[in-house]
Amino acid sequence: MKYNPVELIIKKRQGEELSRDEIRFFIGSYLEGKIPEYQVSALLMAIFFAEMNPDEIQTLTEIYIESGAKIKFDAKLNTVDKHSTGGVGDKITIPLAPIVAACGAKIPMISGRGLGHTGGTLDKLEAIPGLRTNYSEAEFRQFIDKSNFSIISQSDALVPADRSIYALRDVTGTVESLPLITASIMSKKIAEGAQNLVIDLKVGSGAFIKTMEKAERLGRLLAKTGENLGQKVTVVFSDMNSPLGHYIGNALEVKESIEYLQGKRVADIHELTKTLAIEMLILSKVCSDKAEAGEMVERVIDDGSALEYFRKFIINQNGDPRVCDDVNLLPQAKYEIPIIATKSGWIEKIDSQSIGFALIGVGAGRKTLDSALDYSSGAFFPKKIGMKVTAGEEIGKIYCNNKQAGEEIVGKFLNSIQISQNEVPEKQLIIKIVDNWD
Amino acid sequence: MKYNPVELIIKKRQGEELSRDEIRFFIGSYLEGKIPEYQVSALLMAIFFAEMNPDEIQTLTEIYIESGAKIKFDAKLNTVDKHSTGGVGDKITIPLAPIVAACGAKIPMISGRGLGHTGGTLDKLEAIPGLRTNYSEAEFRQFIDKSNFSIISQSDALVPADRSIYALRDVTGTVESLPLITASIMSKKIAEGAQNLVIDLKVGSGAFIKTMEKAERLGRLLAKTGENLGQKVTVVFSDMNSPLGHYIGNALEVKESIEYLQGKRVADIHELTKTLAIEMLILSKVCSDKAEAGEMVERVIDDGSALEYFRKFIINQNGDPRVCDDVNLLPQAKYEIPIIATKSGWIEKIDSQSIGFALIGVGAGRKTLDSALDYSSGAFFPKKIGMKVTAGEEIGKIYCNNKQAGEEIVGKFLNSIQISQNEVPEKQLIIKIVDNWD
Repeated sequence: MKYNPVELIIKKRQGEELSRDEIRFFIGSYLEGKIPEYQVSALLMAIFFAEMNPDEIQTLTEIYIESGAKIKFDAKLNTVDKHSTGGVGDKITIPLAPIVAACGAKIPMISGRGLGHTGGTLDKLEAIPGLRTNYSEAEFRQFIDKSNFSIISQSDALVPADRSIYALRDVTGTVESLPLITASIMSKKIAEGAQNLVIDLKVGSGAFIKTMEKAERLGRLLAKTGENLGQKVTVVFSDMNSPLGHYIGNALEVKESIEYLQGKRVADIHELTKTLAIEMLILSKVCSDKAEAGEMVERVIDDGSALEYFRKFIINQNGDPRVCDDVNLLPQAKYEIPIIATKSGWIEKIDSQSIGFALIGVGAGRKTLDSALDYSSGAFFPKKIGMKVTAGEEIGKIYCNNKQAGEEIVGKFLNSIQISQNEVPEKQLIIKIVDNWD
Repeated sequence: MKYNPVELIIKKRQGEELSRDEIRFFIGSYLEGKIPEYQVSALLMAIFFAEMNPDEIQTLTEIYIESGAKIKFDAKLNTVDKHSTGGVGDKITIPLAPIVAACGAKIPMISGRGLGHTGGTLDKLEAIPGLRTNYSEAEFRQFIDKSNFSIISQSDALVPADRSIYALRDVTGTVESLPLITASIMSKKIAEGAQNLVIDLKVGSGAFIKTMEKAERLGRLLAKTGENLGQKVTVVFSDMNSPLGHYIGNALEVKESIEYLQGKRVADIHELTKTLAIEMLILSKVCSDKAEAGEMVERVIDDGSALEYFRKFIINQNGDPRVCDDVNLLPQAKYEIPIIATKSGWIEKIDSQSIGFALIGVGAGRKTLDSALDYSSGAFFPKKIGMKVTAGEEIGKIYCNNKQAGEEIVGKFLNSIQISQNEVPEKQLIIKIVDNWD
């Protein structure tokens, strides 16, 4: 062997920089089966503590990309994607992609499934009868060519090294490492062919990043890594203390997205979608001015063209496009169980993460990767931090096919909400936008 | 499973205390093959960074002890052992054990082999023709009963959990963790039946602990863990910047030890042996006063009774006792290559670790556990920090059976010695002795 793996682990453990060649040797040898998992997991934990500098992260990202296929689009297309670090009720991709597509940008989206307290875009889309997400690169290109956007699942050909390392991180308590998160996100977003990227970096109780200090560190690592590898990156920091929109659950979030594209502007969905869309339109050079981009977003909703792009997307990907006209064609739950407030006051805190975990009980999310989903289940919950509630008031609903499971969640739901006797200010959804990290 | 291993790794990673039950679950499940090595190595690296408190270390030590056999001696015997954290030329156990035995203490010693830059007592002893160290517990007890001490190798029955974890630490860069070192040392020293323990904690360039700050932390952890488990512990902090004695190498160190027991008092060997012997005699209640203990040590050397105890030990363990009268019966190297000083001045620094590693080149040490040893090879080097040398002076010798390999080492040896033009003060060998950690 060119290097002694133990010496490299110790080097990182002591806080020293690993050279490009050393990182390539270590990860490369692991992928070839020449370094055992127990040495890789020791290195990953050492990275968790000793971190990695931007050069090391760039090398790791490159290794991930080079380990598999790389989709390339013509530079003139100025392709753009959005990545969200994940939150409860975050269905924003679903209305965002057709809006930006309707404005004329090209959006290659390779998305993921849900695990734990947050849902995944693929799961939500697959609630649409017939819709598929497993397409080849050629089909993906064809859909984007024809209808400006496509959302598919990650094929085994893309960033296999990241998949393999991620599986190990998942079982060794090293998922939360910022350098490892950065390489994992950026490798996928570069390999899928996005020339520009808007990151929705969520901060708060319902996100895995709880503080702005940590969010800023991650934002900088993501943006710098993208830029070092030739991708333009804008980071939107957004609050994730209240669940997004009024609905949580796969089919329910598709329904809410379609209604939004039909013109029903739920405040937080609209604010976040519009903000992200504007940044995407600027990066992709469809617009050169934010005000112009904002007007274009409003227009493609009002004139129905965004909904038409969504319809084309569903048709391309084998789904039933009639859901665009009749959301009742989406899977529907048998039972609706009201959530009744037991106290009066102002909502001070919402433990969105607990709500997300509680809803796994009715099949709205997955505990493990092989758990089955119940697309129709979920919750209606239009309340946000700072809103007033009155004891006895119906503040939401649980949708379920198992009444007992649903009833059990009502209690957990109420426990996740903290009511104050004093007025509580509302949270600002968009914290800040950064497109220049120097 | 009672706990989720990933959650326990994350708990430790976040700096939280693992409960007795959680540690027992994790290590126990690993030993039963229910938790994979990659999760254990992630936990070990998390422990390296987040450390463990005395309660956690005690639990880990208990698990190690309970995983195998435990040798018990009658409490009235007040058995005592010495553990050295390891240094270049450290042959002290060889003269120390028969001296303390000749004074009347009972010393059950289970020792190890050398790896890397330091040698192991078992390897040194096995340079004596015929001598064996693999004996059963019954034989071990019988030898101690008859001749007050015995030095044997660790059987597979003793602390198997430590052996298994140590093997994993060795290949994952987690050997240097103070809590893990503590549990590893103390479990062995308690399982072997030592009711009292003197620790020779070495600090300096030739030791794995380079600073007093770290040495004090380790000393406290070792002593507290011993005391929590009913063992009395005294820690002697000693300098390890110059190699100990005049010889390095297996047979050469036995020769030097025998000559010492014959009355040739090399200054540093005598100072350290006497200091450790006094502490052992106090702990084992053979003496109640240090001055009295010191006189007794001088006496058993002068009257030859210590050498007689060494002879009995050799006879018990199948070796050729004639080496006690004629050290030339020990393996001898074919070649002696002089080391000639190239500069005049005072010795300012000796990189003992590099010297130890260099001597692996002639077979005096092991690179890996299955490397073969050449018992006869090694070096003569009587110089210490602060001594004056003159260009052209023979300051030492390499003993070897491969002339070319030996000649290569001469250069490495000279490179390991830093000569100053200004006078350099000598180092104090015994830094301090602590027998009370409150």
